[in-house]
Amino acid sequence: MTQAPLHPLDQAVQLEPAGEHRYRGHTSQAYWNMIGPFGGATAAVMLQAALDHPERLGDPSALTVNFAGPIAEGAFEVVARPARTNRSTQHWHLELLQNGEITTTGSAVFAVRRDTWNCGEAVMPAVPAADSLPRMAGFAPVKWLGSYDMRAVRGAKPDAAAGTENPDSLTQFWLRDAPARTPDYTSIAAWCDAFYPRIFLKRAGFVPAGTVSLTTYFHADAATLAALGDRHVLGSAQARVFRQGFFDQTAEIWSPDGELLATSHQIVYYKE
Amino acid sequence: MTQAPLHPLDQAVQLEPAGEHRYRGHTSQAYWNMIGPFGGATAAVMLQAALDHPERLGDPSALTVNFAGPIAEGAFEVVARPARTNRSTQHWHLELLQNGEITTTGSAVFAVRRDTWNCGEAVMPAVPAADSLPRMAGFAPVKWLGSYDMRAVRGAKPDAAAGTENPDSLTQFWLRDAPARTPDYTSIAAWCDAFYPRIFLKRAGFVPAGTVSLTTYFHADAATLAALGDRHVLGSAQARVFRQGFFDQTAEIWSPDGELLATSHQIVYYKE
Repeated sequence: MTQAPLHPLDQAVQLEPAGEHRYRGHTSQAYWNMIGPFGGATAAVMLQAALDHPERLGDPSALTVNFAGPIAEGAFEVVARPARTNRSTQHWHLELLQNGEITTTGSAVFAVRRDTWNCGEAVMPAVPAADSLPRMAGFAPVKWLGSYDMRAVRGAKPDAAAGTENPDSLTQFWLRDAPARTPDYTSIAAWCDAFYPRIFLKRAGFVPAGTVSLTTYFHADAATLAALGDRHVLGSAQARVFRQGFFDQTAEIWSPDGELLATSHQIVYYKE
Repeated sequence: MTQAPLHPLDQAVQLEPAGEHRYRGHTSQAYWNMIGPFGGATAAVMLQAALDHPERLGDPSALTVNFAGPIAEGAFEVVARPARTNRSTQHWHLELLQNGEITTTGSAVFAVRRDTWNCGEAVMPAVPAADSLPRMAGFAPVKWLGSYDMRAVRGAKPDAAAGTENPDSLTQFWLRDAPARTPDYTSIAAWCDAFYPRIFLKRAGFVPAGTVSLTTYFHADAATLAALGDRHVLGSAQARVFRQGFFDQTAEIWSPDGELLATSHQIVYYKE
């Protein structure tokens, strides 16, 4: 009897218990950025610790991850401690440590979803179907891009002449894991950081930049995510302001049927 | 020699040291909601603890506050602990406790701002000047509304027939403290929660609702805020999706000169 190998994402977020509220994990080459892990993988593994915790109540509603310091290749520990558990919500304190030093802080809110009056006020952008678009080529030094199947709709690459300013910083692409994997909260947490820094697009060139703080709101229940199977989702991201070394980004993740699965916001450091 | 009395906001966020990384404060009647403090005042006092801390580096860039449980009228403690201090950024762990129980968790990122290439991609909405609009009447049971001078542009009150659905949940108003107070990071942290729950507007009626998690990004430096003096700022807020008991809100705070001072996001519980 053989067992199918774990999907690279499931490998990347695999944790083993290491004491009360503590878990041991390891960085993943499949989700490696240039000099550290892809931030989305870090967000995902911190959420995973709360998902795995025996006292977990409900499903993720909000996740904040603050990238405080570099993470080196190798082992790490995640602390996931329920700070307060109510009847239908649960608040988590999260930390990632390497060699006893805090590299990443965070918090999460889990909640029990209920049937209510619902309304999708925002409308999914009208875009060509994923199948009609070619898969984007990766960029060899950035390994984690190979773990995604991305189909560019617009703003996918800062490909104008360097130094030319673009009128907007809007990127839209269809996205799914590669190899394909049915989405869950873990993969959504990672997807929300899958947009390269908006300043690359705005300025049509590369400058040092990195996410400082990332907050994701999960709007879909587990059954909705499971029903997506291996279809692509539409990702969209844009900045509002670049000022004094920091810019913001708001991202949306849409199901192909037009349901808003997640919204995510981040503040990003840049040097220029 | 007499001293001018403290502004109500400065009273509300007044903290005294209570041990390492701990501060003692007290709820404020001027920022009282119906059955607890105005969430913006809670966010402001948690930020204030980091602002007051002797190890503080730089100014606020990001603030996340998770409303985990009710806060009663009376004394509370705020824990503000620098989790990691880098050369130009500092990461804070925040907690508010009452009688030893965690009511509110949070985190903040402080940063030293630098001169860089800047760009305001988002554009301030075209609205009538604050002076041309009447000050909104308060709503007696909600005391904190009396601590603000708000001038409605649109969507200021859910005033259609109850049960009628509005096409959007967009509110815009001019805002300043009452009495007027030159803004700083503390007042901005409070302002970002000054929008009543979007579902009241969308459904044109009242349902139980409360913020679960709030994240604010500060885009202006201290000198920019100080230069605003007692002019109004423009606040704008809208939801993207209402689903299964939770909706999101994105808010923007604009200077009257069209500079984006802050963006803020929250996920809000509702019952219906």
